[in-house]
Amino acid sequence: MVLHQFTPRLYYNALGSYEPVLRICPGDTVVTTTVDNAGRDSSDQPVAARPNPLTGPFYVDGVEPGDTLVVHFDSIWPNRHVGRSSTVLAYNVVDPDYVKTMPPRRKVEAEWKLDLKQGIATLVTPQTRLGQLVLPMKPMLGCFGVAPANEQAISSVTSAAHGGNMDYKGFVTGVTVYLPVFAPGGLFFLGDGHAVQGAGEIVGTGVEVSFDVQFTVNVLKDEQITWPRAEDEASIFTVGNARPLDQALQHATTEMLRWLQDGFGLDDRAAHILLGQCVEYDVGNVFDPAYTMVCKLKKTLIPH
Amino acid sequence: MVLHQFTPRLYYNALGSYEPVLRICPGDTVVTTTVDNAGRDSSDQPVAARPNPLTGPFYVDGVEPGDTLVVHFDSIWPNRHVGRSSTVLAYNVVDPDYVKTMPPRRKVEAEWKLDLKQGIATLVTPQTRLGQLVLPMKPMLGCFGVAPANEQAISSVTSAAHGGNMDYKGFVTGVTVYLPVFAPGGLFFLGDGHAVQGAGEIVGTGVEVSFDVQFTVNVLKDEQITWPRAEDEASIFTVGNARPLDQALQHATTEMLRWLQDGFGLDDRAAHILLGQCVEYDVGNVFDPAYTMVCKLKKTLIPH
Amino acid sequence: MVLHQFTPRLYYNALGSYEPVLRICPGDTVVTTTVDNAGRDSSDQPVAARPNPLTGPFYVDGVEPGDTLVVHFDSIWPNRHVGRSSTVLAYNVVDPDYVKTMPPRRKVEAEWKLDLKQGIATLVTPQTRLGQLVLPMKPMLGCFGVAPANEQAISSVTSAAHGGNMDYKGFVTGVTVYLPVFAPGGLFFLGDGHAVQGAGEIVGTGVEVSFDVQFTVNVLKDEQITWPRAEDEASIFTVGNARPLDQALQHATTEMLRWLQDGFGLDDRAAHILLGQCVEYDVGNVFDPAYTMVCKLKKTLIPH
Amino acid sequence: MVLHQFTPRLYYNALGSYEPVLRICPGDTVVTTTVDNAGRDSSDQPVAARPNPLTGPFYVDGVEPGDTLVVHFDSIWPNRHVGRSSTVLAYNVVDPDYVKTMPPRRKVEAEWKLDLKQGIATLVTPQTRLGQLVLPMKPMLGCFGVAPANEQAISSVTSAAHGGNMDYKGFVTGVTVYLPVFAPGGLFFLGDGHAVQGAGEIVGTGVEVSFDVQFTVNVLKDEQITWPRAEDEASIFTVGNARPLDQALQHATTEMLRWLQDGFGLDDRAAHILLGQCVEYDVGNVFDPAYTMVCKLKKTLIPH
Repeated sequence: MVLHQFTPRLYYNALGSYEPVLRICPGDTVVTTTVDNAGRDSSDQPVAARPNPLTGPFYVDGVEPGDTLVVHFDSIWPNRHVGRSSTVLAYNVVDPDYVKTMPPRRKVEAEWKLDLKQGIATLVTPQTRLGQLVLPMKPMLGCFGVAPANEQAISSVTSAAHGGNMDYKGFVTGVTVYLPVFAPGGLFFLGDGHAVQGAGEIVGTGVEVSFDVQFTVNVLKDEQITWPRAEDEASIFTVGNARPLDQALQHATTEMLRWLQDGFGLDDRAAHILLGQCVEYDVGNVFDPAYTMVCKLKKTLIPH
Repeated sequence: MVLHQFTPRLYYNALGSYEPVLRICPGDTVVTTTVDNAGRDSSDQPVAARPNPLTGPFYVDGVEPGDTLVVHFDSIWPNRHVGRSSTVLAYNVVDPDYVKTMPPRRKVEAEWKLDLKQGIATLVTPQTRLGQLVLPMKPMLGCFGVAPANEQAISSVTSAAHGGNMDYKGFVTGVTVYLPVFAPGGLFFLGDGHAVQGAGEIVGTGVEVSFDVQFTVNVLKDEQITWPRAEDEASIFTVGNARPLDQALQHATTEMLRWLQDGFGLDDRAAHILLGQCVEYDVGNVFDPAYTMVCKLKKTLIPH
Repeated sequence: MVLHQFTPRLYYNALGSYEPVLRICPGDTVVTTTVDNAGRDSSDQPVAARPNPLTGPFYVDGVEPGDTLVVHFDSIWPNRHVGRSSTVLAYNVVDPDYVKTMPPRRKVEAEWKLDLKQGIATLVTPQTRLGQLVLPMKPMLGCFGVAPANEQAISSVTSAAHGGNMDYKGFVTGVTVYLPVFAPGGLFFLGDGHAVQGAGEIVGTGVEVSFDVQFTVNVLKDEQITWPRAEDEASIFTVGNARPLDQALQHATTEMLRWLQDGFGLDDRAAHILLGQCVEYDVGNVFDPAYTMVCKLKKTLIPH
Repeated sequence: MVLHQFTPRLYYNALGSYEPVLRICPGDTVVTTTVDNAGRDSSDQPVAARPNPLTGPFYVDGVEPGDTLVVHFDSIWPNRHVGRSSTVLAYNVVDPDYVKTMPPRRKVEAEWKLDLKQGIATLVTPQTRLGQLVLPMKPMLGCFGVAPANEQAISSVTSAAHGGNMDYKGFVTGVTVYLPVFAPGGLFFLGDGHAVQGAGEIVGTGVEVSFDVQFTVNVLKDEQITWPRAEDEASIFTVGNARPLDQALQHATTEMLRWLQDGFGLDDRAAHILLGQCVEYDVGNVFDPAYTMVCKLKKTLIPH
């Protein structure tokens, strides 16, 4: 159980079986940083290429395909005082007949001042009827995951079974994520931090900012999952990444059924009745090539 | 402002331009009942044909196509002590390759005991590892709406711009809904009450039960909306009904943009920035021919 | 076996259980006319309201829910010399990011001169680099079907299991269609003729024109189908109507499997192998709320 | 203009920026072979790993990102006498409620005898009511493409803008394909040959077989396309790869509009009118994570 201080020097724009930047062991903790979606660091200086440059990959000793990689987000927090967001909705989240009435999606960015102590984001520009809109920060990691199957390298602007750019508001400090392992060492990547973000990331960004991150890894040997899983204090959740959202929902729901039966020992009738009257869904990214749907269930509802 | 006690004697399985069962005026309140999805009333006796028999239509004097019908749900509450739900997930909410592993969707119903005073639903049968699962009731109307456009009559098991079978957990006591009007008098229908329901209605039912309902109608003359809107104390929300969910989300998001601009006076940049970082989505029905997506925004975030 | 000359005097904009305009018997033939999508007749005069006014419904004696209505298109041919089409693609058939670069979909119509003897359509206006584009006519019925289930009335601009606005290029003279029956008499409607049309009806119209139509009805008693089927000399085909196209394809493929097994006596392995290497798909309407996919198989491939 | 005889010794299961197996020049011709989807060669011996092992990549000198790679399929023909296909439809191409009635998708393969001289495929096993079904061979390449953008490596069982596993029946001898270039040299891959295949590859395979292939490469310098294009003697076509099919259709249609305007000099009104009444669509793969839709137009219809 070692604590590694790791300062990234190179960044990847895809999740693949690249040379690890650090080898760690199950139980180890890593303290590191991520740059923002445009490659800007804690000094707001460009140090990496667009889009969504990622820190990693971290190789976890003893982790093999067929295992599950466990990552606990000990702490996720912005490390600078300026965040930026897009200001026009993606054309794919509105009716096709409405697109012509919308502003152009050119590069008018909104700038936000981040009060890192109080955890508050304040809109600075542009001038709109929102004035200086003040939002509570909910720092989250937009993109993380492992090297995908079949020696693929998949862009950090999309997602699949290995994770990737899921842009889910629920991936905050305190969450434990479970990822299917396809490559030796797992090869964990992370980046694309948002100080705050609406569901769906429907303008194509959150309030983009560089992060200080601390995470702790572990492994479930010989436990194979199909889609990312996660839990926080209150809930367990499963993640499906695909288009259309209907298919993402199918992936997430199926994974939840498996978890309830294989992981929590429910008979199938129990699992179905429970989900039928108690399931929740959250919408992740609906901007990128693959959309994200999260299937969620309160822990208190699951019998022991 | 009259209070009408209305006892339904016939029920419709579609929303269409049928002969009104009652004529009321803007400002009037109606106290009535709905039967459950199988047509059973407060005595658990079958009095109407499947599926989803509806109470109504109510004709609101002075309401014309191009107006918006306003309905406030004063009170929605079960009026008997037994509810029933399906016990197997719909095959369309899981991966196609998973279907063969699932139980058959034959008619094994779960039965729930409803404590109407304490607002608690308790699973009675079947016997599963859930035991006597206890859930807080959140009574909601699964299906309501108005006569659709072009003299159509659309089944109460699907939904569109006129409302219909949206099965959204948020349609509870205290909510005000806004419906586009396509026929003279609006012609309001309601039914398909659920004592409690998971998101998506993914087993194809909530805990189905007959209801006592009180609602109050009003009209926004010459205010035309495209999709259903609603509000409760905390939030405003818009509803899109379509497949795939992506398109339902497009409808709901577009309607929210219109509302923020036309209804709340936001400039378009303000509306986009606000939704980008603050929008929420809730999943309604993902069982029926048309799926439902709800776009939601907290009222406190909207500048005056 | 009577030949009915029927001159329509009213038209419906939905398919529903309306009062029949004519009662006929299995084996009877009807000679009638249809107006164009805008309600213009053979004299190019407006006689019916938009959109897609339909001739019918025709009540076929002895036809009951659970039967299959058979309609043979003896002859489908324009009855005037001018046709009209839209000139801009529907925004839903292009990438959302491309919409802003497109011309507005305002009412610049193209006009076509129809040579009814030679079967040729010539573009007259507007002036474009196409000049006087000459196309062979392939007259087809865009919209036909029966009264839908559950006493619904469904707009003639969409489609479902009962048929409707499928806009499939293959519905031409000589085709026999099979429709599931949901209401007594079947209640057959037809209209929305196109002198020629590209796949998908992607500008939202074909070359719209009024038609002379002759059709002959029949019934398959107690033979129940789920989706429309059809055949011409060369092929059998099945039709799925839904969004997304994926689901329309599922409906059509499933119906073809049923037909091969129940209708042609193939064992399931045979049906799967045959479709796997020989199936064809044609795209029908991709403009309206429900899209249409056609699953097709050459008759010579089916063993006796 | 050199003719290269190339015997592959290693195969890739993804399209990525791997070390080229051969460097060639624009105008050069390559004579090579591909193994079948299971890695079996012309002797029906396993020489490569599943799934869809590809021959290549071929590096074309002078080809840079932003160019278009041109590949003419001089000859595509099986080089052994046995082909194999799956015997059960993929569960994702039928209605979810139909899946439970289907045979299991276990490994009962059909075997086909290929008469390479006469171009005929004959079903040998299993025994079904099809007997010894005889089909004319139409040898096609199921998977080909270039290295994708952003240094990705994408599995040969899916597809995107770079090509990949499109399984389109029209990719036969005599076709010229145009591919967007994302990596220096383009890096062309090919494989997954089918002696014959139904539309959609709905059993998940065609009649899988190893191939002799001859192709000739060229380049369009500084001509940038977004999606694969192709032409044969009769038609031009564009290819969209995505889910749902609706989005694949959007990609293909948008690319066709661009081609008609930028490549053939049509004004936009002309392009829209022409496609509106003349476009054809063919369905490619509907089995894999990304579906394929082809947009097609007859060359004789395009004005000079």
